[in-house]
Amino acid sequence: MDTLSVETSEKEALISDVGDAVIFSGMQGDDDIPGIGQYDDFHTIDWQRDIARDRMRHRYIVKKRQDSIWDLIKGAHDAWSGWVCVLLVGVCTGVVAGVIDIGASWMTDLKFGICPQAFWFNREQCCWSSNETTFDDGNCSQWLTWPQVFGESREGAGAYIISYLFYIVWALVFAALSASLVRMFAPYACGSGIPEIKTILSGFIIRGYLGKWTLIIKVVGLILSVSSGLSLGKEGPMVHIASCLGNILSYLFPKYGRNEAKKREILSAAAAAGVSVAFGAPIGGVLFSLEEVSYYFPLKTLWRSFFCALIAAFILRSINPFGNEHSVLFFVEYNKPWIFFELIPFVGLGIIGGCIATIFIKANIWWCRYRKYSKLGQYPVTEVLVVTLVTAVLSYPNPYTRMNTSQLIYLLFNQCGISNSDPLCDYDRNFTDVNSAIEKAAARPGVYNAIGLLFLALLLKLVMTVFTFGIKVPCGLFIPSLALGAIAGRIVGIGVEQLAFHYSKIWLFSGECQTGVDCITPGLYAMVGAAAVLGGVTRMTVSLVVIMFELTGGVRYIVPLMAAAMASKWVGDALGRQGIYDAHIALNGYPFLDSKDEFQHTSLAADVMQPKRNETLAVITQDSMTVDDVETLLKETEHNGYPVVVSKESQYLVGFVLRRDLNLAIGNII
Amino acid sequence: MDTLSVETSEKEALISDVGDAVIFSGMQGDDDIPGIGQYDDFHTIDWQRDIARDRMRHRYIVKKRQDSIWDLIKGAHDAWSGWVCVLLVGVCTGVVAGVIDIGASWMTDLKFGICPQAFWFNREQCCWSSNETTFDDGNCSQWLTWPQVFGESREGAGAYIISYLFYIVWALVFAALSASLVRMFAPYACGSGIPEIKTILSGFIIRGYLGKWTLIIKVVGLILSVSSGLSLGKEGPMVHIASCLGNILSYLFPKYGRNEAKKREILSAAAAAGVSVAFGAPIGGVLFSLEEVSYYFPLKTLWRSFFCALIAAFILRSINPFGNEHSVLFFVEYNKPWIFFELIPFVGLGIIGGCIATIFIKANIWWCRYRKYSKLGQYPVTEVLVVTLVTAVLSYPNPYTRMNTSQLIYLLFNQCGISNSDPLCDYDRNFTDVNSAIEKAAARPGVYNAIGLLFLALLLKLVMTVFTFGIKVPCGLFIPSLALGAIAGRIVGIGVEQLAFHYSKIWLFSGECQTGVDCITPGLYAMVGAAAVLGGVTRMTVSLVVIMFELTGGVRYIVPLMAAAMASKWVGDALGRQGIYDAHIALNGYPFLDSKDEFQHTSLAADVMQPKRNETLAVITQDSMTVDDVETLLKETEHNGYPVVVSKESQYLVGFVLRRDLNLAIGNII
Repeated sequence: MDTLSVETSEKEALISDVGDAVIFSGMQGDDDIPGIGQYDDFHTIDWQRDIARDRMRHRYIVKKRQDSIWDLIKGAHDAWSGWVCVLLVGVCTGVVAGVIDIGASWMTDLKFGICPQAFWFNREQCCWSSNETTFDDGNCSQWLTWPQVFGESREGAGAYIISYLFYIVWALVFAALSASLVRMFAPYACGSGIPEIKTILSGFIIRGYLGKWTLIIKVVGLILSVSSGLSLGKEGPMVHIASCLGNILSYLFPKYGRNEAKKREILSAAAAAGVSVAFGAPIGGVLFSLEEVSYYFPLKTLWRSFFCALIAAFILRSINPFGNEHSVLFFVEYNKPWIFFELIPFVGLGIIGGCIATIFIKANIWWCRYRKYSKLGQYPVTEVLVVTLVTAVLSYPNPYTRMNTSQLIYLLFNQCGISNSDPLCDYDRNFTDVNSAIEKAAARPGVYNAIGLLFLALLLKLVMTVFTFGIKVPCGLFIPSLALGAIAGRIVGIGVEQLAFHYSKIWLFSGECQTGVDCITPGLYAMVGAAAVLGGVTRMTVSLVVIMFELTGGVRYIVPLMAAAMASKWVGDALGRQGIYDAHIALNGYPFLDSKDEFQHTSLAADVMQPKRNETLAVITQDSMTVDDVETLLKETEHNGYPVVVSKESQYLVGFVLRRDLNLAIGNII
Repeated sequence: MDTLSVETSEKEALISDVGDAVIFSGMQGDDDIPGIGQYDDFHTIDWQRDIARDRMRHRYIVKKRQDSIWDLIKGAHDAWSGWVCVLLVGVCTGVVAGVIDIGASWMTDLKFGICPQAFWFNREQCCWSSNETTFDDGNCSQWLTWPQVFGESREGAGAYIISYLFYIVWALVFAALSASLVRMFAPYACGSGIPEIKTILSGFIIRGYLGKWTLIIKVVGLILSVSSGLSLGKEGPMVHIASCLGNILSYLFPKYGRNEAKKREILSAAAAAGVSVAFGAPIGGVLFSLEEVSYYFPLKTLWRSFFCALIAAFILRSINPFGNEHSVLFFVEYNKPWIFFELIPFVGLGIIGGCIATIFIKANIWWCRYRKYSKLGQYPVTEVLVVTLVTAVLSYPNPYTRMNTSQLIYLLFNQCGISNSDPLCDYDRNFTDVNSAIEKAAARPGVYNAIGLLFLALLLKLVMTVFTFGIKVPCGLFIPSLALGAIAGRIVGIGVEQLAFHYSKIWLFSGECQTGVDCITPGLYAMVGAAAVLGGVTRMTVSLVVIMFELTGGVRYIVPLMAAAMASKWVGDALGRQGIYDAHIALNGYPFLDSKDEFQHTSLAADVMQPKRNETLAVITQDSMTVDDVETLLKETEHNGYPVVVSKESQYLVGFVLRRDLNLAIGNII
């Protein structure tokens, strides 16, 4: 009887007040008026109405729960569905991230050689199976480089040319495949996706942007484009992929799938899971979602997002795609803590990072605008191929650009230990004991050579990333930004280190640097520089510091990271105001109103509005209008919505109703 | 000219529309109408108006900035003042926390003995200065226990009695001092302060709660009450102390000091700094502030809060009150990762933790209510003395309750290594090498004895904390909760460990426990149990996990911590609904509306309101009322505020004005 009376009063409400009725319809549970709560493509959702609908639905379920056991179970299912949904999102995100990591590492190694015994092994797995103890330059006898496959030796000019050619050809093949897949099946799968997800989370509808085709093509395309050696990362797209999973899985739960406002809670959690698997940083992921992408983030979903991010990270770690012990991506351990005066170079790095980031943003936006409004935009695949060709040709000769960008960052973050044979560690010192402190030493020519190569790598990566971010393949820029900053930081770090060695009597270095022990760790400078550039590019703050701290395990270095991130953000804000994502949102004209901005306009709306003189205002009156009048109004005007007023004479605003809802309501009465 | 016209139009506004004028007055900068923006004691602030006032003020400063260099500097100072203020709050919080740590550790050791060479040294510092290498039970020849001071030997019945007596006397002296100070100078300094700070941050005014006397007495009283050996912690009060500092320092910056809504941004940051220094957990502190105490937390203050928390932690670490290397309080390092099946006991611990927490909350609230409504409440100092006496008499005989609670937690968290001689580590094993794995072993009688003592300690601590939390000295319950959980966890952990040893053939233990290596770490169970009880008591979620993770440095154990915290929260919610802070808010009748709660009432306000029949509604009309009419209205009625309507006939609500503002405005016109 109770439910019946509710339904009757609803029908009345539906007829008497069209606008409000749409809210109440949520109470009917499964008997929804079809189309209610759905929006057209490129429309903005009505937060208040969706939240009110969910509240009605909840109240209805709570009331009905006393009726029967079945309703009680349905009520329990409803209460749990949020947790179950984020659990599924977390598990799927972890699995997909594992697939991407395994695929990308295998295909990246395919550019250099193959494992004949088991072609599905990457170089590292291949060498494990060979049981050799010492690897020369990461190679082992099991693993055949392409010259070896064709019977050449490993060294020599011929081998170099064959390697070079294979490197370029594979890169082109991967990039072409990726671009073609994106162009043919899912145009939304290109780019990082973060600007669009910010817009979607702020309440905009882009149909298909988080759909299953976008998901599949983005996963495959991402593996291909990462493997092609382009200057891009897989971290940003991982957020998009996780959001796709969140969107698809939310349809299993009507509470979320049918309510766009509630669905955004799941999408926020999914974005957190995306960052979590990208960096192995669950806390950083939640803060990223809270600070950077989310718009409607009620605090009760914080816990659920954290759960989702943690499950995703846990699943990925159980899959263990890289086969190493550490759950952190760029695990570092420095012998020495930082010294107080080092804050000066750290802040300096922050300023450099802010400048690099501003140059990058301005150049990238200029190029993207040029692409958008010129003929170039019509040949996306060609553009991808040209960029890939240039990148591959220029990258191969320089060992620091030839290697995987993640490996480069890891190398730059590391301190020179006993096991490090890279030219970067070519110091005038002998290691006698693993446990003893590293002595202070002069740099030898190897280091200066390395600095030169790193400087070239910095320039190349900066230029190539400008042209790469925005091409029509899945591409993120966390990793390229980190790499730019790590290179700049390492160069500055070596400079400070050599200063401290040669002028150790200066008062600045006097305290800790008097003894023979090395007091400056260039790897720490690389880490700080990486945070500075990434902070300048994305304007992340807390989440950046937390991600860096989870990424590297460096609990002790929060203060330097923070100093650099602050300096970089301030320099960036002073020079350019917008981060890369906001700039891309503005470039694409998405209707995004940042909830963190304050808009201070003193002029009144009445001063800037220009009513059309000849027409009367198209309004719906509260009492006097019949359904027929409404239908006439709908036919005669083309507005998307109408103000509801008390009467034609006393135009007190009562509410606002959308054309779409009027159509739906009228359709349901008849 | 520009400013002049602004001021003129303001005066007009002041006369024409009394209600709105109050907002505009903020534009005048220093020429504020006295009293504007201040509220009476136990009143609720008007968020919208305060935020609008700040926006006006900001707009005024931006406009004026072009007038002169001096105004430009003032504008820059205004823009920076938020950062400068949180910097000062961070520095002061760090320093005060250092003072408290040093003072409490010295006075805690004073109960056991004294350092004759330098009485201001605590035992550890005293023993450092002695240069001895081996300490027996933490004592060295430099440090004299009280029996030794009086010429007795260290051992023997006489020595025991003297020690016992000194322990009780010192505890009583400290507790009496603390309670008397609180009673005489600052009654608000008692308790943890977190319920009140939640209420204040939600927009309530309690004059003097965050004042300088409360600060001073809380610091001194906290040192004394922690040293007295009562079952309480210094973490909760630290949040109160930091908030006092935030409040006092905000008066240096009119932007914050004169605007209650803006001041709450500083207070949120200060609360984060308080947790940050209490646990050495800056990220956890920010999340605690966001999740648990804050109400109005705009995202742009997240970064500032983080800065504040980090500075405070950094300063405290530079002071280094404990003189150890690790920046984390209970640093642990376990040899073995956890095993998947262990999730079952972890969830079990979560359930136990939730039950312990519910028992504690119910009992404590019952006792606090009894105290509040009975004669007991009139003798606070006597109550403190009785509780102290009982605690001291019962605690001393049991070594696990005699020691500092922090030390107990640290001991329980640790794994049994080569250097651990406590009976808890009395296993049937020989350590041959520091680096080799710990072998699986049967527990010897020492362990079973220790379990018995721990069980007694659990009971004693639970009962004593129920009676302690709420007495009139500064007292927090983070540390007692952690201790309760750690004891329960350690007992369960030893049980599981011995199960795995004796029944290692069962399929559950088959995988990792087949080898001779110890596969279960009881210390991890203690950590998980601690998180479970704390989570059940406070209902913290994300911030709890992050604090535990920062507290222990145990990055690998987020999943167990999370599983236990979730189980505990769910059990707690099922049994009791309210956390301890919310229960105390309800008990004290503070007007706190949780922003995270959804209030689902279907009845309309009109149905429950009862207008007085004989009187007309006391309203202010928009156009027709003179100042004289308003004065008459103020005299004749006693309401705290009046609705403003269009006219007596058409009572459309235009706004609402407070009696206080009317009085102020009229006073300023005349």
